[in-house]
Amino acid sequence: MSTNTPSYDELAATYRRAYRLGHLQSLAGWDQAANMPPGGQEARAAAMAEMAALLHRMRTQPSLKAHLDAAEQEPLSDDQRANLREIRRDWFAATALPEDLVQRQSLARSRCEHAWRQQRPANDWAGFLANFKEVLALGREEARLLSQQTGLSPYDAMMDRYEPGMTTARVRELFGALRQWLPGLIREVTERQRQQPVVLPQGPFSLQAQRVLCERAMRLFGFDFNAGRLDVSTHPFCGGVPEDVRMTTRFAEHEFLGSLFGTIHETGHGRYEQNLPREWVDQPMGQARSMALHESQSLSFEMQLGSHPGVVAQLAPMMAEAFGAQPAFEPANLQRLLTRVQPGFIRVDADEVTYPAHVILRFEIEQPLIDGEIEAEDIPALWDTKMMELLGIDTRGNFKDGPLQDVHWPEGLFGYFPCYSIGAMYAAQWFAAMRRDIPGLDDQISAGQLGPVFDWLRRNIWNQGSRFSTDELTRLASGQPLDPSHFRRHLEARYLGR
Amino acid sequence: MSTNTPSYDELAATYRRAYRLGHLQSLAGWDQAANMPPGGQEARAAAMAEMAALLHRMRTQPSLKAHLDAAEQEPLSDDQRANLREIRRDWFAATALPEDLVQRQSLARSRCEHAWRQQRPANDWAGFLANFKEVLALGREEARLLSQQTGLSPYDAMMDRYEPGMTTARVRELFGALRQWLPGLIREVTERQRQQPVVLPQGPFSLQAQRVLCERAMRLFGFDFNAGRLDVSTHPFCGGVPEDVRMTTRFAEHEFLGSLFGTIHETGHGRYEQNLPREWVDQPMGQARSMALHESQSLSFEMQLGSHPGVVAQLAPMMAEAFGAQPAFEPANLQRLLTRVQPGFIRVDADEVTYPAHVILRFEIEQPLIDGEIEAEDIPALWDTKMMELLGIDTRGNFKDGPLQDVHWPEGLFGYFPCYSIGAMYAAQWFAAMRRDIPGLDDQISAGQLGPVFDWLRRNIWNQGSRFSTDELTRLASGQPLDPSHFRRHLEARYLGR
Repeated sequence: MSTNTPSYDELAATYRRAYRLGHLQSLAGWDQAANMPPGGQEARAAAMAEMAALLHRMRTQPSLKAHLDAAEQEPLSDDQRANLREIRRDWFAATALPEDLVQRQSLARSRCEHAWRQQRPANDWAGFLANFKEVLALGREEARLLSQQTGLSPYDAMMDRYEPGMTTARVRELFGALRQWLPGLIREVTERQRQQPVVLPQGPFSLQAQRVLCERAMRLFGFDFNAGRLDVSTHPFCGGVPEDVRMTTRFAEHEFLGSLFGTIHETGHGRYEQNLPREWVDQPMGQARSMALHESQSLSFEMQLGSHPGVVAQLAPMMAEAFGAQPAFEPANLQRLLTRVQPGFIRVDADEVTYPAHVILRFEIEQPLIDGEIEAEDIPALWDTKMMELLGIDTRGNFKDGPLQDVHWPEGLFGYFPCYSIGAMYAAQWFAAMRRDIPGLDDQISAGQLGPVFDWLRRNIWNQGSRFSTDELTRLASGQPLDPSHFRRHLEARYLGR
Repeated sequence: MSTNTPSYDELAATYRRAYRLGHLQSLAGWDQAANMPPGGQEARAAAMAEMAALLHRMRTQPSLKAHLDAAEQEPLSDDQRANLREIRRDWFAATALPEDLVQRQSLARSRCEHAWRQQRPANDWAGFLANFKEVLALGREEARLLSQQTGLSPYDAMMDRYEPGMTTARVRELFGALRQWLPGLIREVTERQRQQPVVLPQGPFSLQAQRVLCERAMRLFGFDFNAGRLDVSTHPFCGGVPEDVRMTTRFAEHEFLGSLFGTIHETGHGRYEQNLPREWVDQPMGQARSMALHESQSLSFEMQLGSHPGVVAQLAPMMAEAFGAQPAFEPANLQRLLTRVQPGFIRVDADEVTYPAHVILRFEIEQPLIDGEIEAEDIPALWDTKMMELLGIDTRGNFKDGPLQDVHWPEGLFGYFPCYSIGAMYAAQWFAAMRRDIPGLDDQISAGQLGPVFDWLRRNIWNQGSRFSTDELTRLASGQPLDPSHFRRHLEARYLGR
């Protein structure tokens, strides 16, 4: 095959190979969480570290540099040029890291995450610390090398992999404002809600009925079961590949809302993946734009839609069918229940209003941690102080519901947390734009028609992949750059009726 | 690290890397059968073909040749020398095949197997043929290249990958004798059994109870659930890796014995894998010796043990617990039921006595097919003739219960079928040797003590991996080379009481 874009073609072929091998890596990660018996851990960790090193080798092979430069001069389409930009971005970050570090990180994270599964329920902070210090040391080394390569600060260089262009300064700006008005809003809402009685669902809730309910909700939210499935893991996530999305949830007999809304959350991630531009699926341009945009999709599903009165009215009868009719499933009560604001220990169980407090806290710990201003031993005291400050909650000595609650740090995912709350801001901005673009949107949602929402997201977000930068995409979709006031307005409208 | 075996170390490191990456390939194959939604097929096939090509590239990299030669001169232990022999064997076969062929085979097999899943129930021979001719053409090309490399005939060169050293001449010798006495034995046994009434189990059998029963049986047969699991797939198999064995079965509400004994069969494969020499697990010497030996383990479990009156007496109450007491579960009746001989269409459902007829038929078709003496279009007529000849069954027009019934040909596994019946011969030989080595073996089995059987197999077969050739292993374990008379004696003792 002879084309007039030989260097571009060579790059695309390399990334196509990496995508295909990455498919196996991604599947193995899902299986590790959803299926693998404990005895398989050591061999799996070795296999995944081997693959991590191999993929790293592919992304850093010396010949790529010349092809990247030559491809710039080739007659590329706009999409090809966008793909070349994304390939260069990936190559630039990858070449900062030696293969040895990548492999050692894979093993250290695997070891730390595996041990943490037992250490968390045992409240064993000291045991966790022993493994975590290695993960942190390697994470700092990674951040230092990325910082040298990019000229960003270490923490910014880490964040840049999840949210290209995001900086500590910008997060401080976004979160700083939030930190000002959020505690007051939480107080005002909880005060107001004290007057509103709410009936709680009565368990137990059969696990089989919960599974059926979750799958019904996934169908309501448009998940394509021909290209994905739902399984169970201790820590729910959305994995697999765009052609075969593997979502997980977890079930408990005494409580079903956490599982149901966790599933709706992951369905947002899943549909983003399932609707990425298919003709670009094996290229960097075909990947999701950023992790804040990814979270904006899961939160569009879980929060913007999931607690929308029109959707609540559709979920209510499904619950009654699953578990039998209960006063709690009466739509007005369910609406109150789903929008109940209550400060708590656990981020993933938090309501929409207190959730940002959990994220601010983590950002304010991991940023100085990576930038070398504090040490791992300092985490619990900082955690306690900030939880008291932000949510008025005493967490002293309770590591399992404190700094041990998340899988991110054991897995070395430093710099990810801000994406959740920035995602919530984007989600609010998308719905503001949708209300502008689609007359009578809320009436349609209330009539059970979610199609217009999905069409808007598909056209403006999902199908765009990484064609544009996050800022460009945001402008194209909503007519303006990220504007956090939409999030505040959304919370005030929903929780204070303003 | 500096050693006095640098070339051997380099080879071992290469094969260790290949083993780790093969872990991901093996897991993806299991997932494809057990979990994958239909829409994932194309991407999965591409991913697995990419990995097949990559592993092939590793096994054929030019530097290996010099290391193989140099390693011969290095001061190796006996085990290292055995490993070197196995590495050379693998390298020798791999270098016969160009990467392009390996990748095209992976894709063609994937396509053919995937379409066959629908074509079999639809009895669509013509549709199958369209894909299968490509698989066959590539299989013949593979056989031709292997033949050039090894000096064996094309079919022998294919068989050699599954059963090193096995030849068409030897199979003809083994099967030729079998073909003489088997039809007479089948007649004699069916005649004799006509006098013995047998009560059939009454369904339906709840799928959940069947699953629990299968897992109980796996525990009885010593499967380690810390290093493996049982799932469901259309075509049961034993996959995964020795550290994490993935067995599958299938359930039907009207019949449970097929699933249960299929599971016991796969448990034999699973325990062989789980008990391979662990310190060699990532090297060729640590792999199972051959596929006939592998089948000798599954048949030791399913047939030698599974229909042993002492084991039947233990399975009977488990069935009663699973489905409620029934006359069919009375041990004497169950024994008659499990040893019922009846010619039928389906190989995997066949009893121990008629099973070899199915294998002889397939061998007599695939050998001339690969050696170019017949064409794919000739298969149905040959199938009809041989089924009538061997089992007196009319299969005309019934492709789905005829040549479409097995997954082997769609997957291009030519040369595998003889392993089943050679495995049955080995299994009979192992039990003859065990009875010699372990006084009162049958009494121990009847007392519910299967430990001595497992210990013997672990010591003589499982823990040996590929340390010896099949012939050497057979002599060491049983004191003689493969002697098919044990199989005949076993059948005559069990089915004619001789």
